[in-house]
Amino acid sequence: MKIITVSRQFGSGGRELGRKLAEKLGFDYYDQEIIKMIANNKELDADYVEKTLEEGGWQTAPLSYGCSLDGVVAVQNIQTDIIAEEQRVLDEIARLGRDCVVVGRNADAFLCQEQLLKIFVCATINSRVDRCMKHLRPEEKNLTRKKMERKIRKVDRNRVRTAEFFSESGWGNPENYNVVVNTTGWEIDELSSVVAEFSNKWFDKTEKKQ
Amino acid sequence: MKIITVSRQFGSGGRELGRKLAEKLGFDYYDQEIIKMIANNKELDADYVEKTLEEGGWQTAPLSYGCSLDGVVAVQNIQTDIIAEEQRVLDEIARLGRDCVVVGRNADAFLCQEQLLKIFVCATINSRVDRCMKHLRPEEKNLTRKKMERKIRKVDRNRVRTAEFFSESGWGNPENYNVVVNTTGWEIDELSSVVAEFSNKWFDKTEKKQ
Repeated sequence: MKIITVSRQFGSGGRELGRKLAEKLGFDYYDQEIIKMIANNKELDADYVEKTLEEGGWQTAPLSYGCSLDGVVAVQNIQTDIIAEEQRVLDEIARLGRDCVVVGRNADAFLCQEQLLKIFVCATINSRVDRCMKHLRPEEKNLTRKKMERKIRKVDRNRVRTAEFFSESGWGNPENYNVVVNTTGWEIDELSSVVAEFSNKWFDKTEKKQ
Repeated sequence: MKIITVSRQFGSGGRELGRKLAEKLGFDYYDQEIIKMIANNKELDADYVEKTLEEGGWQTAPLSYGCSLDGVVAVQNIQTDIIAEEQRVLDEIARLGRDCVVVGRNADAFLCQEQLLKIFVCATINSRVDRCMKHLRPEEKNLTRKKMERKIRKVDRNRVRTAEFFSESGWGNPENYNVVVNTTGWEIDELSSVVAEFSNKWFDKTEKKQ
């Protein structure tokens, strides 16, 4: 069983790359599905689960050592529960034994299969702003490039902080990934073909070792 | 004309990767050659030139603003000269119009060809220590793994500082490279073939754009 995890800077096109990679390799694809599975299993709102896992939602909780106010404890428990549930959901996916691509959710910190390829996707800040400005939601129509840049940096700061919670090694630190691809200058479709070839070579290699 | 720059963590195998990449693509290869060219042109010792360009040699100079002691000014002038000479040497190489791979020397900060691929090579600290312990120089025979790890981190800290001098964007920051490869788990020869394919795809693509 082969698993590819895709971590990505906001606006880098990492999600699209992950989806196309799964298509080209004939792998299953998980992204929002993981959020939905956790939300269903724990009977929680999917948006809340996503915020907690992706944007460091728990960091905003009023954590204070020795505090025993019921509210704080309750919030912390739900957050710990969500993380434990993610581990269960990822174990479940791994037990299916089907090759898959998992985008985001710090899945790289939870998984330890032998046939595992960890990818980080980045891009220059300019090309990330370009990409985001092309895909504005209706409520973002008045967003300037400057404000979009600020939003991108904020989301990424949250991802850094969230990842610190799961592992010590640091989000976006190249040493933690097998390969880091910069999407700047590429069409995502073309790049996904190149990354698919890279993935095949990596898995051929790790298969031989087993 | 196609240029590939290879920046690398100490002990990652980046130099070997660059050399094999040049072999496989049929590109010229520059590494120590640049140091020698600068040393020859400026009538300086090659080791001194290397220290200055690679290990942040000038950072150890007693810089103090408003200081006019002849010694300090002389040291600063030589260092500025070496950097200016590197720019001239790289311009000269570019004028030859031959495809090439340039390893280290912050060449990525000096070059701005349209057909340029910037690679960063890293590895986990454990596999870097492994690699370095296999290639100990006679005077290093008594070096423990712990001491080797310290040496590796020191060389890399120097590279970070040196790179800051040439560009603001940060050594090893994935956004500054087209691709970052982690050599951990690969034979360098195998990996160089994969990276050669990646390079061909990138140059095909940038050629079409021109």
